[in-house]
Amino acid sequence: MKIELDHGGGGQKSWEIVKDIRKILKNVGEWKSTDDDGAVFDLGEKKLVFTTDGFIVEPLFFPGGDIGTIAMTGTINDVAVMGARPIGVSLSIILEEGFPNKDFEKILQSIHEVSKKSGVPIVTGDTKVSPKGKIDKIEITTSGVGLADKIINNNGAQPGDLIITSGDLGEHAVTLLASRFNYKTKLKSDCRPLNNELKEAGQYLKACKDPTRGGLGANIVEIADKSQVKIILEENKLPYKKETVAVAELLGIDIFSLASEGRFIAAVDVKNKDKAIKILQKYNKEAKVIGRAEFGEGVFLETKIGSMRKINMPAGKLIPRIC
Amino acid sequence: MKIELDHGGGGQKSWEIVKDIRKILKNVGEWKSTDDDGAVFDLGEKKLVFTTDGFIVEPLFFPGGDIGTIAMTGTINDVAVMGARPIGVSLSIILEEGFPNKDFEKILQSIHEVSKKSGVPIVTGDTKVSPKGKIDKIEITTSGVGLADKIINNNGAQPGDLIITSGDLGEHAVTLLASRFNYKTKLKSDCRPLNNELKEAGQYLKACKDPTRGGLGANIVEIADKSQVKIILEENKLPYKKETVAVAELLGIDIFSLASEGRFIAAVDVKNKDKAIKILQKYNKEAKVIGRAEFGEGVFLETKIGSMRKINMPAGKLIPRIC
Repeated sequence: MKIELDHGGGGQKSWEIVKDIRKILKNVGEWKSTDDDGAVFDLGEKKLVFTTDGFIVEPLFFPGGDIGTIAMTGTINDVAVMGARPIGVSLSIILEEGFPNKDFEKILQSIHEVSKKSGVPIVTGDTKVSPKGKIDKIEITTSGVGLADKIINNNGAQPGDLIITSGDLGEHAVTLLASRFNYKTKLKSDCRPLNNELKEAGQYLKACKDPTRGGLGANIVEIADKSQVKIILEENKLPYKKETVAVAELLGIDIFSLASEGRFIAAVDVKNKDKAIKILQKYNKEAKVIGRAEFGEGVFLETKIGSMRKINMPAGKLIPRIC
Repeated sequence: MKIELDHGGGGQKSWEIVKDIRKILKNVGEWKSTDDDGAVFDLGEKKLVFTTDGFIVEPLFFPGGDIGTIAMTGTINDVAVMGARPIGVSLSIILEEGFPNKDFEKILQSIHEVSKKSGVPIVTGDTKVSPKGKIDKIEITTSGVGLADKIINNNGAQPGDLIITSGDLGEHAVTLLASRFNYKTKLKSDCRPLNNELKEAGQYLKACKDPTRGGLGANIVEIADKSQVKIILEENKLPYKKETVAVAELLGIDIFSLASEGRFIAAVDVKNKDKAIKILQKYNKEAKVIGRAEFGEGVFLETKIGSMRKINMPAGKLIPRIC
């Protein structure tokens, strides 16, 4: 048995390898939420959130950002969707021998930009260099720590809740793919830190995830599974730009599997819906309700003509090296 | 300008690249000790320690451990030498497509072994897969968090202190090198978690570092520089096994640059020396005094005939992919 690309894609195969890893590394001591976006440790009054993510994207530079932008936003967002204030990020970089200094500096500048925008500093790091040919240009792993009063867990959605998105989805994925094919579009990566809007809106959210790897499909299935609810998404409210859909269709990729790097989806109590959406629309006008949770199980797309189509965890070939 | 292998070696060139990174990412917010083995955040009664390290070692498996063993011990030790109790480690893995599952499982088992021995759990993680040829087999980045009542900083050595080691040094480096050349020795990597002995002895230590990359040379120079003291090591107390020295000489490598993965060096007040050594010798009989701190600056080796030889931060070619 050998490792396959799909093991890293964020779909069904990824879940299998994570299950295998957990079989061996099952002891998590006093920690909680270790199968959520971040692990949680009880500090008494506050809770510590801890998360990590490795980035090997291709291309390194793309409209809207670069590997540095998404390494920083990805980790800040994983802490923030847990309901925590990200307080610091670690930066571990592996460079290929011969990597141009000016490209490296550009990536560091992007990290600095996200740090400024989010107010989250890089506080510790490591730099290694691999001989030429032993790594592809640069690899970045960021870990994040945050402090929370109250954790938002993925299992928090309840029947009767509405499902919201903080903005249009999938633009990050199609931007990277279009760049790989030198295909010119007006799209640019949606990557950005979400901690400021989550600081304001977090109090109203009951389950929250940033749909990176695996896209809306994998992430909404995870919320439905963990919360033990049925989730219905409405086709006429799907949060994708026309051009995002067009590029995805051109490439034959299911829009539900498209990664974003600056968006979250969440469940919200009906009575808090307007308050949450009002806050989120200050940051992104496309924030809106896209579905609802009901008693039952599974995720379904309610089509424009009223029929229901089941949405499964993406199982097949997912797009590698996108986030 | 391009990245060179030496930029990742742990010597002078590594310091230059870290300085360049810090020029851009200079804001560290409320964090302290951000140029130490781990960054420190004040939680009120307790202090949070946060650290990260990337591992791209060659060979992956060697006498005494594998890449999993050192990824886990390296991060636990970076937290522990700060005087903190490591409470959790994150595990970010990038696998090359086609990597054998049985090797991956062996590496996970090694991580599990260190976790059991140290009592520190893996609590969060990430797994990515890179296309064949885009990464060399496997790369692991671990980050660690810990809690401390009192931080041990590298600048804590004072004139009059003694310099101690928790055991023989350099065996990790020469073991990996000998493995690369298929050269049979009785040596095995010294990698092991130090948190248990540091929990007991930490109260007596004033400056503490695990001499991984850059070896005793780079690490003792760092303590002397930061503490603004002169450090004198005694040649007849140098903590290297005969076989370690023999292999290093055969390969033309300065013993002072040899990495260890389960040892620390520290400064200790004369009045606490016996207490510290007594504790450390329960874990390793080779724990001993190897030198002293005086008023002044620089690091010197006092030879057997009483002359002084200056020890500099290793500048030249350091051994890549050793830790």
